[in-house]
Amino acid sequence: MIIVLKQGISANSIKEVTAKLEAKGVSVSHFSDIKRDFLGLIGDTSGIDTHQLQALTEVEQIVRVEEPYKRANRKFHPENSVVKIDNETIGGGQLGIIAGPCSVESEEQIIHVAKRIKAAGANFLRGGAFKPRTSPYSFQGLELEGLRMLQAAKAETGLPIVTELMSTKWIDEFVESVDMIQIGARNMQNFDLLKEVGKTQTPVLLKRGLSATYKEWLMSAEYIMSEGNENVILCERGIRTFETETRNTLDIQAVPVIKKLSHLPIIIDPSHAGGMSYLVEAGAKAGIAAGADGLMIEVHDDPANAWSDGEQCLTPDEFAELMVKARKLAEIEGRSIQEASTILTK
Amino acid sequence: MIIVLKQGISANSIKEVTAKLEAKGVSVSHFSDIKRDFLGLIGDTSGIDTHQLQALTEVEQIVRVEEPYKRANRKFHPENSVVKIDNETIGGGQLGIIAGPCSVESEEQIIHVAKRIKAAGANFLRGGAFKPRTSPYSFQGLELEGLRMLQAAKAETGLPIVTELMSTKWIDEFVESVDMIQIGARNMQNFDLLKEVGKTQTPVLLKRGLSATYKEWLMSAEYIMSEGNENVILCERGIRTFETETRNTLDIQAVPVIKKLSHLPIIIDPSHAGGMSYLVEAGAKAGIAAGADGLMIEVHDDPANAWSDGEQCLTPDEFAELMVKARKLAEIEGRSIQEASTILTK
Amino acid sequence: MIIVLKQGISANSIKEVTAKLEAKGVSVSHFSDIKRDFLGLIGDTSGIDTHQLQALTEVEQIVRVEEPYKRANRKFHPENSVVKIDNETIGGGQLGIIAGPCSVESEEQIIHVAKRIKAAGANFLRGGAFKPRTSPYSFQGLELEGLRMLQAAKAETGLPIVTELMSTKWIDEFVESVDMIQIGARNMQNFDLLKEVGKTQTPVLLKRGLSATYKEWLMSAEYIMSEGNENVILCERGIRTFETETRNTLDIQAVPVIKKLSHLPIIIDPSHAGGMSYLVEAGAKAGIAAGADGLMIEVHDDPANAWSDGEQCLTPDEFAELMVKARKLAEIEGRSIQEASTILTK
Amino acid sequence: MIIVLKQGISANSIKEVTAKLEAKGVSVSHFSDIKRDFLGLIGDTSGIDTHQLQALTEVEQIVRVEEPYKRANRKFHPENSVVKIDNETIGGGQLGIIAGPCSVESEEQIIHVAKRIKAAGANFLRGGAFKPRTSPYSFQGLELEGLRMLQAAKAETGLPIVTELMSTKWIDEFVESVDMIQIGARNMQNFDLLKEVGKTQTPVLLKRGLSATYKEWLMSAEYIMSEGNENVILCERGIRTFETETRNTLDIQAVPVIKKLSHLPIIIDPSHAGGMSYLVEAGAKAGIAAGADGLMIEVHDDPANAWSDGEQCLTPDEFAELMVKARKLAEIEGRSIQEASTILTK
Repeated sequence: MIIVLKQGISANSIKEVTAKLEAKGVSVSHFSDIKRDFLGLIGDTSGIDTHQLQALTEVEQIVRVEEPYKRANRKFHPENSVVKIDNETIGGGQLGIIAGPCSVESEEQIIHVAKRIKAAGANFLRGGAFKPRTSPYSFQGLELEGLRMLQAAKAETGLPIVTELMSTKWIDEFVESVDMIQIGARNMQNFDLLKEVGKTQTPVLLKRGLSATYKEWLMSAEYIMSEGNENVILCERGIRTFETETRNTLDIQAVPVIKKLSHLPIIIDPSHAGGMSYLVEAGAKAGIAAGADGLMIEVHDDPANAWSDGEQCLTPDEFAELMVKARKLAEIEGRSIQEASTILTK
Repeated sequence: MIIVLKQGISANSIKEVTAKLEAKGVSVSHFSDIKRDFLGLIGDTSGIDTHQLQALTEVEQIVRVEEPYKRANRKFHPENSVVKIDNETIGGGQLGIIAGPCSVESEEQIIHVAKRIKAAGANFLRGGAFKPRTSPYSFQGLELEGLRMLQAAKAETGLPIVTELMSTKWIDEFVESVDMIQIGARNMQNFDLLKEVGKTQTPVLLKRGLSATYKEWLMSAEYIMSEGNENVILCERGIRTFETETRNTLDIQAVPVIKKLSHLPIIIDPSHAGGMSYLVEAGAKAGIAAGADGLMIEVHDDPANAWSDGEQCLTPDEFAELMVKARKLAEIEGRSIQEASTILTK
Repeated sequence: MIIVLKQGISANSIKEVTAKLEAKGVSVSHFSDIKRDFLGLIGDTSGIDTHQLQALTEVEQIVRVEEPYKRANRKFHPENSVVKIDNETIGGGQLGIIAGPCSVESEEQIIHVAKRIKAAGANFLRGGAFKPRTSPYSFQGLELEGLRMLQAAKAETGLPIVTELMSTKWIDEFVESVDMIQIGARNMQNFDLLKEVGKTQTPVLLKRGLSATYKEWLMSAEYIMSEGNENVILCERGIRTFETETRNTLDIQAVPVIKKLSHLPIIIDPSHAGGMSYLVEAGAKAGIAAGADGLMIEVHDDPANAWSDGEQCLTPDEFAELMVKARKLAEIEGRSIQEASTILTK
Repeated sequence: MIIVLKQGISANSIKEVTAKLEAKGVSVSHFSDIKRDFLGLIGDTSGIDTHQLQALTEVEQIVRVEEPYKRANRKFHPENSVVKIDNETIGGGQLGIIAGPCSVESEEQIIHVAKRIKAAGANFLRGGAFKPRTSPYSFQGLELEGLRMLQAAKAETGLPIVTELMSTKWIDEFVESVDMIQIGARNMQNFDLLKEVGKTQTPVLLKRGLSATYKEWLMSAEYIMSEGNENVILCERGIRTFETETRNTLDIQAVPVIKKLSHLPIIIDPSHAGGMSYLVEAGAKAGIAAGADGLMIEVHDDPANAWSDGEQCLTPDEFAELMVKARKLAEIEGRSIQEASTILTK
């Protein structure tokens, strides 16, 4: 961290600022050019609050050279992380394909969709049991009953389960019944929830907040990791911009940027990004071409009667077609997608 | 709600769509012009999911004429709401002036600041005990000990206390010790937390999320109100835009828009909006001129040594000067700010 | 266009509004449900100003069902447009690969780069002669001399030339010496310039403005087309968002959305979108996978000494490697990229 | 400017980079702490292209301590600029109140409105003769005929005229007939146009681009000033954000930020910011309270029949009422607004 001091500062003031900084446990080196003085902070500056330093009257500007995240930082962990989720992994050569309905609606529905997506090549089942809805008057999910139905679908198909946790209240139930806990975009900075999932060892799918910068997103991953749970997978699902024709703007550059800054796997959710089914194929293929480690795609047997987010769902047939194209693309990129099968095995 | 159907749709398809809609408990009237058919939905459409309707292949476009919020809607509650908080109110002729440090740091500090802001005319004390910090390595607040210190400051000065709740875990302690519960910007769509504070009768200060639309913000208020707690005050604290010179962009138009859409009081937080102390005066005065019901301002005795957000704090002297100017402005606008005093009374 | 009238409006007011609307040359049909009255406007509403209608006190809301663009609209031109540029095309099976330096710096430089990119498979040469720079103190381009150098490079390599026009002053020189005129992001709504290039038959590469919606972008294309020049190609080059780690956010969903709304070809510029060379590969490949009709990529022999935008340039070698990967990807998508060659022919 | 070099760089590389930098005409001083080396650039760095430096493989990060604008910079011109426009000024104690219709529609109309706004206290007349419209099919303005009508209104009322210039083609006519040339938001980075108005001495009202940062805006002012025309007034008119309920978001913090960075006057346009007449009062008053040097407000005799932007116009009566309130507010802030009069004098 470099601190640029205001012009015309006295030697005494420099001493005072230096003393204040050293009291924070860092070493300070002083250098200057003709016009200005600078202080370089050496040591672990991750706990230093630049907002506080900025309040010092002597300070013109602060430049953080080091990133504030450590465990999520590729500098300290150069190899890609591969996260193990039940009998599958995300982050290695095979892409993680997560599919399923927005909401779990019935045991019959979720089992049926699970079989169809597995047959097409998906290796994870998603389905919302607790739903974050903008309106308190909208369907809020089947809750614990939904979790039970997801388990029934796993028992039928063997697909590991991914579902969203919205409250620390249900954390024990999730650890017990779920293979990967999803933290939704709206809760990306629900620090209380992040700390609690950080205390478990269940893999966490951390969606990017609607207006979160890459750094804030990685700092949220850091919250989970700093509590001991290093099994974090990032999910880009569109950011909020001025464009209203699409629900959100899929930030495809998130893939190469996160790959540079961090060792964590990153997947793409084209269903929520665009908010319309006709946008899913382009988003999914762009994600693979950009180097993502997987996809999360909403699939519903009867989108027009889905209990939530119907307009962005693919039908199982559309999903199967997409997987055929995605598989070819993945191969060109030196990755793979699980083979499609017509015979279902547990 | 009007549904625009695709061109060239058959009479039979119209019948089918009509039946599906009626199954959702609304009446449907059909009209058409030369080119198109339209369906008008009559009745309570607040529970209808437009995303689901959009998935119907017959649908071109959906137009929601009614707002999805009811309890927060000015249409059903034409007079301004005045919220009672301990012995004070917000929403009436006297502005609610909430001041205090970002974080509670010690009993001595919080009592000292409370006395100074009260003397200048503030009628509420703020101070963070649980702090939402981007970094897990930053100071996270004194937690319950901080609540105790706020109560000590209230005992000294009589100022009602406002502080942020980040977890449902502490809700009982908050209901017991706090006069107004703040829901922070990052938790504006933490629906679990909203429902829980909705079950209490403690007034809630609901900050706008960094990228929340007015409608989403009002829907979050609706979450609280639909659980039975109608004591909601909205707080505009800056939104996230492309501009980087300021921490956030203060959306001053939020005041007249919210006043039109809703009966709930709205206050302005110029400290978090700009993120720098030199911006506070302009933001505060603009807020009053635009018709806000109050202000929330960070005040710290020694900003350069504040444990968080130092660069946006005013000193008690700067705050006192601002109150003198703000009081004159409020009077021009037909409102008032509590008189300054040199003698402190409980 | 549907006009939702305010509740409780009198039959007389409806008559008056209807008369005002008919005076604008459209037919009006009236329908109503229990709560409200609606007016449907039939006929050519593209010249109707919704802002003006909104000012009528009787109007609650206006819903435009028809898009305001006509010539750019896929509805009236269902097949993809293929634009002919000199001896090449964009919009068909072969991708248009435009490459070259940000600025033309010397004849030697531009010829050298042109040869290298042609050898790698590019089929268009770009190079800025007139440069839009944020600072008046930055290098502004070699201007007409730069155009001459581009022509020299075309004479050597046969590659058609694409370069930016910033002023109507030079339009004759551009029509004479340039194969495709680029309109930059900052001038996307310089309507005077759009009209002037619309009066020529030179193909126009219309970059999306930094905060332009898809509709505004298509309306700018409409400006050009309505003057008679239908040879328009759209170029997505990143939009402005809150994220600061990248120069702009590449909006990959622009490809499927534009393909749905319009018949015009669309290409991707990953160099300007990300603003850093390490982001180019991911953006370029994502663009092809999403269905773009081409790419625009900055290539410079010596990026560290480029006169502008050095940090986002690829070297010729990096570009050649990218083309190898892009070609495979294009083939998977049923498209092609011109073969690389080691022997240069005019 | 400070350049942070990558870790582990050799002494030789440092020498090479230093030589490259010195070749750009600046002095370079080298300092280092335990982990890194830094280069401080001394001298005039306003012409240095940070994008180019960033392309050097040795460079980790570049920190510009100095602002890139000079003539617009308050550091080199500490007192507020007061711009003289015909017989009026903006930037001093009296606020500049610019009012009038969006479009000039007829001589009768513009004279009538001019008289009404003058009577209410406005000291400038606005009215569009050349209109930047999103659609080529919308009314484009009366052009030169409109200019003539504005002059007729000036002859009647004595009010100086402000109107938008969209093309360098008409610059001579504007210099001759207009008292202040407006550069619209869409042309804020039409550098060709900026340079041309910079060569005149006619005062320029420079509107902020929809997604322009403060720095880019000041750099556009710098374009005008660097050509010799220092008579620049900035106008905040709302920025583009994710919020759709208002046309744009009025960035009220622009006032204190610009006042800190620059000596140029800044005014507020609440009509375009909100896009709806009910938002004008709050925006106008917030602007004055925040310290703006004036207002620009759309006034039309019959908003429902305005040829453009009807829904954001005030009627002359509404404008007169607003002026009464604004005048009181200005006085509290130590400023003034011209008195209203019932007798019209030239």
